[in-house]
Amino acid sequence: MKTYINEIKENDHVDSLFLVREKTLGSTKSGNAYLKLILVDRSGEMEGRIWTSADLLSGVFEKDDFVQVKGKAASFQDHLQLNITHIDRVEEEGILLSDFFPMTEKDIDAMFLTLMETGQQIKDPYLNQLLRLFWEDKPFVEKFKMAPASTRLHHAYIGGLLEHTLSVTQLIMKNVAHYSGLNLDLLITASILHDLGKVDELSYHRSFDYSDEGRLLGHIILGMERLENKIRELSDFPKDLALQLKHLLISHHGQYQWGSPRKPMTLEAIMLHFLDNLDAKMNGIHQFLKTQVSEGSRFSRYHPFFEQSFYLPPQKSETEPFNIIEEKEIEKE
Amino acid sequence: MKTYINEIKENDHVDSLFLVREKTLGSTKSGNAYLKLILVDRSGEMEGRIWTSADLLSGVFEKDDFVQVKGKAASFQDHLQLNITHIDRVEEEGILLSDFFPMTEKDIDAMFLTLMETGQQIKDPYLNQLLRLFWEDKPFVEKFKMAPASTRLHHAYIGGLLEHTLSVTQLIMKNVAHYSGLNLDLLITASILHDLGKVDELSYHRSFDYSDEGRLLGHIILGMERLENKIRELSDFPKDLALQLKHLLISHHGQYQWGSPRKPMTLEAIMLHFLDNLDAKMNGIHQFLKTQVSEGSRFSRYHPFFEQSFYLPPQKSETEPFNIIEEKEIEKE
Amino acid sequence: MKTYINEIKENDHVDSLFLVREKTLGSTKSGNAYLKLILVDRSGEMEGRIWTSADLLSGVFEKDDFVQVKGKAASFQDHLQLNITHIDRVEEEGILLSDFFPMTEKDIDAMFLTLMETGQQIKDPYLNQLLRLFWEDKPFVEKFKMAPASTRLHHAYIGGLLEHTLSVTQLIMKNVAHYSGLNLDLLITASILHDLGKVDELSYHRSFDYSDEGRLLGHIILGMERLENKIRELSDFPKDLALQLKHLLISHHGQYQWGSPRKPMTLEAIMLHFLDNLDAKMNGIHQFLKTQVSEGSRFSRYHPFFEQSFYLPPQKSETEPFNIIEEKEIEKE
Amino acid sequence: MKTYINEIKENDHVDSLFLVREKTLGSTKSGNAYLKLILVDRSGEMEGRIWTSADLLSGVFEKDDFVQVKGKAASFQDHLQLNITHIDRVEEEGILLSDFFPMTEKDIDAMFLTLMETGQQIKDPYLNQLLRLFWEDKPFVEKFKMAPASTRLHHAYIGGLLEHTLSVTQLIMKNVAHYSGLNLDLLITASILHDLGKVDELSYHRSFDYSDEGRLLGHIILGMERLENKIRELSDFPKDLALQLKHLLISHHGQYQWGSPRKPMTLEAIMLHFLDNLDAKMNGIHQFLKTQVSEGSRFSRYHPFFEQSFYLPPQKSETEPFNIIEEKEIEKE
Amino acid sequence: MKTYINEIKENDHVDSLFLVREKTLGSTKSGNAYLKLILVDRSGEMEGRIWTSADLLSGVFEKDDFVQVKGKAASFQDHLQLNITHIDRVEEEGILLSDFFPMTEKDIDAMFLTLMETGQQIKDPYLNQLLRLFWEDKPFVEKFKMAPASTRLHHAYIGGLLEHTLSVTQLIMKNVAHYSGLNLDLLITASILHDLGKVDELSYHRSFDYSDEGRLLGHIILGMERLENKIRELSDFPKDLALQLKHLLISHHGQYQWGSPRKPMTLEAIMLHFLDNLDAKMNGIHQFLKTQVSEGSRFSRYHPFFEQSFYLPPQKSETEPFNIIEEKEIEKE
Amino acid sequence: MKTYINEIKENDHVDSLFLVREKTLGSTKSGNAYLKLILVDRSGEMEGRIWTSADLLSGVFEKDDFVQVKGKAASFQDHLQLNITHIDRVEEEGILLSDFFPMTEKDIDAMFLTLMETGQQIKDPYLNQLLRLFWEDKPFVEKFKMAPASTRLHHAYIGGLLEHTLSVTQLIMKNVAHYSGLNLDLLITASILHDLGKVDELSYHRSFDYSDEGRLLGHIILGMERLENKIRELSDFPKDLALQLKHLLISHHGQYQWGSPRKPMTLEAIMLHFLDNLDAKMNGIHQFLKTQVSEGSRFSRYHPFFEQSFYLPPQKSETEPFNIIEEKEIEKE
Repeated sequence: MKTYINEIKENDHVDSLFLVREKTLGSTKSGNAYLKLILVDRSGEMEGRIWTSADLLSGVFEKDDFVQVKGKAASFQDHLQLNITHIDRVEEEGILLSDFFPMTEKDIDAMFLTLMETGQQIKDPYLNQLLRLFWEDKPFVEKFKMAPASTRLHHAYIGGLLEHTLSVTQLIMKNVAHYSGLNLDLLITASILHDLGKVDELSYHRSFDYSDEGRLLGHIILGMERLENKIRELSDFPKDLALQLKHLLISHHGQYQWGSPRKPMTLEAIMLHFLDNLDAKMNGIHQFLKTQVSEGSRFSRYHPFFEQSFYLPPQKSETEPFNIIEEKEIEKE
Repeated sequence: MKTYINEIKENDHVDSLFLVREKTLGSTKSGNAYLKLILVDRSGEMEGRIWTSADLLSGVFEKDDFVQVKGKAASFQDHLQLNITHIDRVEEEGILLSDFFPMTEKDIDAMFLTLMETGQQIKDPYLNQLLRLFWEDKPFVEKFKMAPASTRLHHAYIGGLLEHTLSVTQLIMKNVAHYSGLNLDLLITASILHDLGKVDELSYHRSFDYSDEGRLLGHIILGMERLENKIRELSDFPKDLALQLKHLLISHHGQYQWGSPRKPMTLEAIMLHFLDNLDAKMNGIHQFLKTQVSEGSRFSRYHPFFEQSFYLPPQKSETEPFNIIEEKEIEKE
Repeated sequence: MKTYINEIKENDHVDSLFLVREKTLGSTKSGNAYLKLILVDRSGEMEGRIWTSADLLSGVFEKDDFVQVKGKAASFQDHLQLNITHIDRVEEEGILLSDFFPMTEKDIDAMFLTLMETGQQIKDPYLNQLLRLFWEDKPFVEKFKMAPASTRLHHAYIGGLLEHTLSVTQLIMKNVAHYSGLNLDLLITASILHDLGKVDELSYHRSFDYSDEGRLLGHIILGMERLENKIRELSDFPKDLALQLKHLLISHHGQYQWGSPRKPMTLEAIMLHFLDNLDAKMNGIHQFLKTQVSEGSRFSRYHPFFEQSFYLPPQKSETEPFNIIEEKEIEKE
Repeated sequence: MKTYINEIKENDHVDSLFLVREKTLGSTKSGNAYLKLILVDRSGEMEGRIWTSADLLSGVFEKDDFVQVKGKAASFQDHLQLNITHIDRVEEEGILLSDFFPMTEKDIDAMFLTLMETGQQIKDPYLNQLLRLFWEDKPFVEKFKMAPASTRLHHAYIGGLLEHTLSVTQLIMKNVAHYSGLNLDLLITASILHDLGKVDELSYHRSFDYSDEGRLLGHIILGMERLENKIRELSDFPKDLALQLKHLLISHHGQYQWGSPRKPMTLEAIMLHFLDNLDAKMNGIHQFLKTQVSEGSRFSRYHPFFEQSFYLPPQKSETEPFNIIEEKEIEKE
Repeated sequence: MKTYINEIKENDHVDSLFLVREKTLGSTKSGNAYLKLILVDRSGEMEGRIWTSADLLSGVFEKDDFVQVKGKAASFQDHLQLNITHIDRVEEEGILLSDFFPMTEKDIDAMFLTLMETGQQIKDPYLNQLLRLFWEDKPFVEKFKMAPASTRLHHAYIGGLLEHTLSVTQLIMKNVAHYSGLNLDLLITASILHDLGKVDELSYHRSFDYSDEGRLLGHIILGMERLENKIRELSDFPKDLALQLKHLLISHHGQYQWGSPRKPMTLEAIMLHFLDNLDAKMNGIHQFLKTQVSEGSRFSRYHPFFEQSFYLPPQKSETEPFNIIEEKEIEKE
Repeated sequence: MKTYINEIKENDHVDSLFLVREKTLGSTKSGNAYLKLILVDRSGEMEGRIWTSADLLSGVFEKDDFVQVKGKAASFQDHLQLNITHIDRVEEEGILLSDFFPMTEKDIDAMFLTLMETGQQIKDPYLNQLLRLFWEDKPFVEKFKMAPASTRLHHAYIGGLLEHTLSVTQLIMKNVAHYSGLNLDLLITASILHDLGKVDELSYHRSFDYSDEGRLLGHIILGMERLENKIRELSDFPKDLALQLKHLLISHHGQYQWGSPRKPMTLEAIMLHFLDNLDAKMNGIHQFLKTQVSEGSRFSRYHPFFEQSFYLPPQKSETEPFNIIEEKEIEKE
């Protein structure tokens, strides 16, 4: 069973799985070799030391490996250190990712099924087929179900990209009928695909970071490439439909300074931008408030990205849902 | 029956109601007095001339009066002019406002009823009572039902403020359940009241413009004053609830540069800001596209406020509404 | 007599008043309970430890209490620590605030009297009466005399709000005659009231910070509420005068990005904005230069808010005041 | 006697001085040469035509000459035109500049004397001498007394630079004693010299415009050159004093984006920047309000530079000056 | 032979080719149909009227057709009008584009050859082959040789894209050796391809404008698509090389606000951005100065995009080229 | 021989030259005086202690002196400390600057010679003479050869100003012929002089910092003063030439916000600005990449000034220089 780092106390005997973030070979004053490790799991990080057979054990595992470790926690200069007696490399397959990374609290497979079924309702044959091509692309689907939606700002956990994508898609469905004349098929397709480039932009197998191509191109360009590739497989995909879909994808950040090479120019693009932004903000601030409000205060610490604090009201009333009065009666005869 | 200015052709005999935008007394080369008028209705404006008894008739009406006019349209230097033979002042009560100003296409009373009924579902007794106080304030309600939501940018027509308010309120109701833990009573109250200061900020009886207090204080401050006044009538209104409600009102523009003295600091304030902004943009651009796309083109003219053009896609598919897959099954057990 | 924290040396026996910023119950390796305190006064902060009867003494006082402490200073890991033998809670009334917070160097009562007498010279009966209402509001006056003008940037000390208010008012009096046609009564009233919302925005009884309503609404809105309340008590206060006064209050920050929901639109509002800003900058930079210029240098450290350094010239000549040549002779005959 | 262009009516016989802004030789359908002129004075501009002896008269004067003109005003296509029968070039010496350009309403010589006498009170021998050098520079003084302070924004009239300079200097004198420790000699010298480069930056003999060196270098650089030249004449001028004075000059615009290569870094530089800016704004908006508020309204037209409208309050109370309560009594004993 | 519109004078008999910008059918007061045309060529535009057989001739040509026109120029209300007697539609093939649009002053085929030969020097086999694929794409090459580089700002003439591309490529070659360690093959390829999306972004067969896909996607995205398509044809194109090349393409605008979804992150990308920008500015301002400096002045009119005027110095010295001293001797031994 | 600080290990006996950055007299618990020093050289800094005869030795040297030190390195609380037994002040003349500061890798005298010879090719007699005046100014030349070009951003090493100046001058020569009509003499002179004010702006004898006049005036103003002084020595220097040269100097930062009081208004000024900026960026990022890319990564750390990371591509192909195809053949006949 996993022992979490933030639960370890002085003198504890530990026997558990960790990820090796750093590994350095040192030598003591008396000239003996020792290994200094940084071990991490989802609860935090701690130092580990291997004092005996360091040279030998150094060959057993590398930085970024998962390891099974036995040892005893000791206090050294105000912080805990694990004096390791046994260490073994463990293959990634056996690992429970949620022991090492934050994970969505929802069921990944259920979310994915919901998203697929939503897409199957699309009437436009080209858009319907386009989505099917994506779902049939197994390597893509695997990444799409695991990727976080960002490294820090919102949905920054395993499954976050899928959770955010589904959430935006459901927001679109709830709001689209409020305005007449919108192309719902197009909007649903675009909301499902809007962040697809993030499967290539982010890396998340050892920590949440950007991939090289993520930094150099960004998820808008990477998403365009994947979209282009699928559209090309559908030989008679209407040019104008492709144009609109691509426009929704590249403009969904809404502003040049947020990395969109175009501002939204259609009502559909505006709606996608707003609801995507709303969902990212609501999730990001909700996650932030969970950890950043200290006891006895109702205000969060300063959020460097948003350049402000946030407020957690004292208590919320539990109200039942409202009846939405039908709008049809409002139209003039 | 009203004859609209944009329908008048050379040699037409006209007998209809107009609003006098300008009135100047001139004299011909031969020394005779004449009156030069600018007449307007919702379809446009035209010049009118009174060549006989100008001095006498000048006393009959003033600039900004509604007048019943008889005359004949003549062409003069490339544009039409109305040579007026009879003119009479008409009291405002008899006027159909929609002849002179753009109006909402929806039924004002039906919209108002819907909004009131929505408010009555609020469980919180203070917020419920607060809204009732507003609805019992007859002069306020009258203005609230007639005011436009802006002079040009969105819902710039009689009834626009009410239409926008109802629309934002319905958007709130559709989206609030998507996120857990939000204070729905507070959000609905805030969405109903968020723009209430516009009844004082805008003047719309002769043209859509800003009032003096609108320019000097703006609708956020003016709305705060009205809100304060009503809250004071409810002697035991909870201080914290008032604080949150006021915060939603003053932060709903979202950014300092858009005139909000505070940025949204709660999840409720963020949602209100986003959905208010979405509704204003969707309506504003929709209205703009109706008039600013020239034939044969799919692009609008440059919009000076948004600093871009907009695109009107060639055709929209008519799709039936989607089934929203229930989210509950997604929660992990 | 007060012993200041920055004067305490190793082995000193201390018997003095402090404020408890933090209080934590811990246990030694041998399992005994002890109390770890952070004690503060205006000169700094230090750690305190209670090794005996910790459980018992823990009930005697709380975080944010003032306490009388006896103990001996010992060096521990490079910094001083107070080993406390006696501790007692002290009521706030007996406290000299200037022992714990920075204070204005001027006489608070003399400043307040000067400000009141200045206001009494106002000829306009409504404005004169309005100010009198504020001075008769005892709870307001008490806060107004104690509040700082900001948490850090300028006049960040007890009495700072009053000092800044008087200073701006005197600047207005010195400059207003320089330009003809300005409404002096209005300007003096506005300068006295421009920052009144700060009595609610800031909290300063334990440290200088923002109150909840200060963060959520800000002093411009809070000041508007207090102003509105007083104006309402004066039944026939002229609407236009109220409008102008409110405009001066809400526009005195001068720019949207500095939190003003309106930019100054009258000559009076422009003058108030400039002289308020001048006074804040002059005081803020003067205070900053007192502490931020290191010996041997004429340049301050980088000021993060102003994003620059400041320069302290080597010496100033002591010149007698100049005679201001009368301007009247300059007017053309 | 001067006949002003805005007073000329149809059929008037005109015999007056004008400035020739444009001069074009044309030919009628029948092939006869005629001259088409644009004549201006401070009240406006009008077209003039010379129908006879056009070739001959064309040699008598050039564009940008002052001319004495005789002719009769006739109406042509909705506007007036002067049919000229006699025209003669007039030397500039005989011209009253105020007939052709807006002028300060104050007495230029009295203002200059006041400024000089103010400077003579400076105790610092180097600064005192420096100013004397400027006043002994006759060509400089002549320009300094005539130049406007800008082409449009503020003090945009003959004598405006002097009026603005004196005004800022008097503001400095009124405000400097309010803060202790400021170098008054330095501040007065800097306020007198802060805009001196404008004598080279602006041209104003035919219209208010920028000179070539004004456009390419600007008045801050041009002023630095003149200041450098005078300082060099004073062989032992203290280096540190020169450094501070130059800093005040180059930083007086306050911000990089307003063309200052440095932001104000001393309390003196901050005060000069604020009071200079205040004086420019107060004058500029006062001048703007005189011409830009249409009858019946209290709001000016939109000011493109300030990106806002301004408000002219209905009436101002005439109040007597206030007694400024002495500050000394406020200092704590 | 072509008669240019700006050469036509009253009473001229005209027989020449024009482009029909607008075509409207009207009817005279007497009820006869007539056609009102706007005719354009590269020298300007003029009105044309067809008074006889208007109905019949209206079927012969459409708006945006090229037509051979016979008629006589007459003066009507201050401007010239062409009364047309014969009109015939002309096929586009026979048209000399330079009669209707501004054209590069250089030889298009020679420029293209130079560019191709430059590319052939590339040693990297993948990049070399990639360029060859583009040159073998006949429809692309045809557009690439004709397209302007922008609608107005720089190289806004037929052949402008090619001229700008060659110019940037030559700048790269001249500057790349100045810095060590740069990947020249990559830089040359990127400079040749950096604006390739403009062949799809701009339309220039009737006037210089944006295509629909140009507005909705922009040339950076359109260029990425063309680049992706060609890279895909080269099966073993190295992934890292493709990544770098794409990064150079999408970052060449240098800033988010200029439409780049990424800022330049390599030394190569920085150099390409700077030299591309330099070339665009030098050409754009040079073209602007040719038309925007009025006689007798050395300053251009205000340039709305750059928000400034430009200066044309009085005369340039003709100097012979300098010898560039070899840098090698500078390296330390 | 110099022992570098970053090479010293525990128990080493050290006998070497260092610079004293800080010097503090302390006393041990037993009451004995000791000296605590911070010693630096170009490789880093370390603490030194003098335990015996501290009072006496304290008079031997001061902060900012160079000293010859003997002692032994000991480990104290995790870092090394030098226990000093002998210390002597050393005169600056004997010091090898490159032991203490980063230095250009090029030969300073060779660079200077190249720059001078380049200037001698200038045909314009005034510009040629102007440069000669600068080279004859020995104190200037000495500073010009040693000064860094900035404290941190680019060419931040001894000789950096000269290296950057030569580099920009060579870039100008390589690019100027690419555009016709540019004034090469003017451009070369301006590129040689564009940063000359940095000899006064920066101080670099003890560390790289700004001088007082550097902070208060900046190198653009300081450069203008030096330029003015030299131009004044050349009695008949053409006014227009001086104007253009000064414009190039003051506008070379390109934007107000980068401290230029004017934006570039001529083609020459635009070219100088771009190539100066290019050279600063290329050098600055190249230097940054040398130290800021950690092993195993291709991305640099975040660069706070540029607000981004940079990318170091995996390997560069070594390509031979390209043949630049002659442009002449491209001109149309």
